[in-house]
Amino acid sequence: MATTSAGTAHPMLTNDHASAWMGIEVTRLDDGHATIQMTLRREMMNGFGMAHGGMIFAFADTAFALACNPADGDGSSMTVAAGADVNFLKSSREGQLLTAVADRRAKQGRSGLYDVQVFAGDPSGADLLAEFRGRSRTVPRKG
Amino acid sequence: MATTSAGTAHPMLTNDHASAWMGIEVTRLDDGHATIQMTLRREMMNGFGMAHGGMIFAFADTAFALACNPADGDGSSMTVAAGADVNFLKSSREGQLLTAVADRRAKQGRSGLYDVQVFAGDPSGADLLAEFRGRSRTVPRKG
Amino acid sequence: MATTSAGTAHPMLTNDHASAWMGIEVTRLDDGHATIQMTLRREMMNGFGMAHGGMIFAFADTAFALACNPADGDGSSMTVAAGADVNFLKSSREGQLLTAVADRRAKQGRSGLYDVQVFAGDPSGADLLAEFRGRSRTVPRKG
Amino acid sequence: MATTSAGTAHPMLTNDHASAWMGIEVTRLDDGHATIQMTLRREMMNGFGMAHGGMIFAFADTAFALACNPADGDGSSMTVAAGADVNFLKSSREGQLLTAVADRRAKQGRSGLYDVQVFAGDPSGADLLAEFRGRSRTVPRKG
Repeated sequence: MATTSAGTAHPMLTNDHASAWMGIEVTRLDDGHATIQMTLRREMMNGFGMAHGGMIFAFADTAFALACNPADGDGSSMTVAAGADVNFLKSSREGQLLTAVADRRAKQGRSGLYDVQVFAGDPSGADLLAEFRGRSRTVPRKG
Repeated sequence: MATTSAGTAHPMLTNDHASAWMGIEVTRLDDGHATIQMTLRREMMNGFGMAHGGMIFAFADTAFALACNPADGDGSSMTVAAGADVNFLKSSREGQLLTAVADRRAKQGRSGLYDVQVFAGDPSGADLLAEFRGRSRTVPRKG
Repeated sequence: MATTSAGTAHPMLTNDHASAWMGIEVTRLDDGHATIQMTLRREMMNGFGMAHGGMIFAFADTAFALACNPADGDGSSMTVAAGADVNFLKSSREGQLLTAVADRRAKQGRSGLYDVQVFAGDPSGADLLAEFRGRSRTVPRKG
Repeated sequence: MATTSAGTAHPMLTNDHASAWMGIEVTRLDDGHATIQMTLRREMMNGFGMAHGGMIFAFADTAFALACNPADGDGSSMTVAAGADVNFLKSSREGQLLTAVADRRAKQGRSGLYDVQVFAGDPSGADLLAEFRGRSRTVPRKG
């Protein structure tokens, strides 16, 4: 994890309708790192009254995308998710504040590996809900 | 894959706010199988103008949950996602109709393995967007 | 799955010391497909008296490599495993004959996705031990 | 990672023929942690002259099993691999010394999640070859 922060504004979020819908707030951005938060709303719940796994995944996936793509990139390339493996450890419920912490684990040419942990509340609380491991590919951006 | 259809109504969807928000329609339900459809809306797009990977995952995850949980279950247990591995093969865009096809691959005691394929358009079109493999666990349902 | 067989000799196996050590026999090779067999030996057992998961993985991985690399390739490129997800469904024991069946699931540019099923005995017996999903990358061959 | 070491002898290895065949040496054992080493031999090479992915996986899997099962357990239960996701980052060659470092990432009831990193040489060298994430289940041991 980098030790200096590059702020919390990221151009990628400007037109990210899905992250806007989720109500995601960026609390920290660095090279290869992102910390974000959101609050679970009713539209994120499944038929068992727990957060829909897809919404937990989508939240982690946004942290992953922010950690992959530098906020000061020149726009000629973009780094996208080639895939991910996720493990759901605990369920969560409406109204909970979640935090996702994404960190680069490895980078090899145009491929990268990022770990995202999703916590209920503050990450210091150690209430781990999900472990997400994302595989990235950097590709030319069509203009 | 079962050869007779059990209809397309599933009690799990009655209170599934996330699937309702996504606008998911069930086109086929059978033991260990589900086929569903949804249309990509603006709130599902990411900052690159493609569907947010999390929304594709959430769509596949709903198909997985429907294939896992029998529509005529007695409500004493529920089958939830322990985890999943997803591979994103192609990007998709606003307005596209997607189809997800979920099938049970293996079942061993309270653990199961389900494959979900996400297609653009009709599955016969063979325009495969994502391959999702879900790991399920059957647990007692808290009353 | 292709309907005509290209024989069971593959140049990749000529110098594959690991597959030779495992005693792997190829029973079918086609474009994007391989079926292989091996018998579990004492050196493949773990401390619980079951086949070591790594040996089951190694067996599946050989089927994956054979399905990825055409037997009549010109040698200028090679397709290697970028990663894999494996689920162990049942344990196995010394002396059992195993069959691995590998099939291409998707191909997109230089990336591919292959499913390998590992069975005890003949695949018709439906005694499924493991499900392996391999992610391939095609790269220039050095040298 | 625990800060005190419980020694490097583990009863599970006494009858682990596969780990013996691989020539695995345990360099550190703690609750939820294991560090092991082995040297790549000719029988671990594939047809491209690199280490067979299955052998790298088998090596990581042994570290995982050692981290899962306490050296001072009473033998009434055992923790086995339900599955794993592995990413191969770099290839390796005959004669190289490898180190695998396994750490518990999460534990929830009878399920656990463990990360294993495989390095060429000493882990301080930061020459990362593979990232393995193992999913464990604790089950009763049949007598």
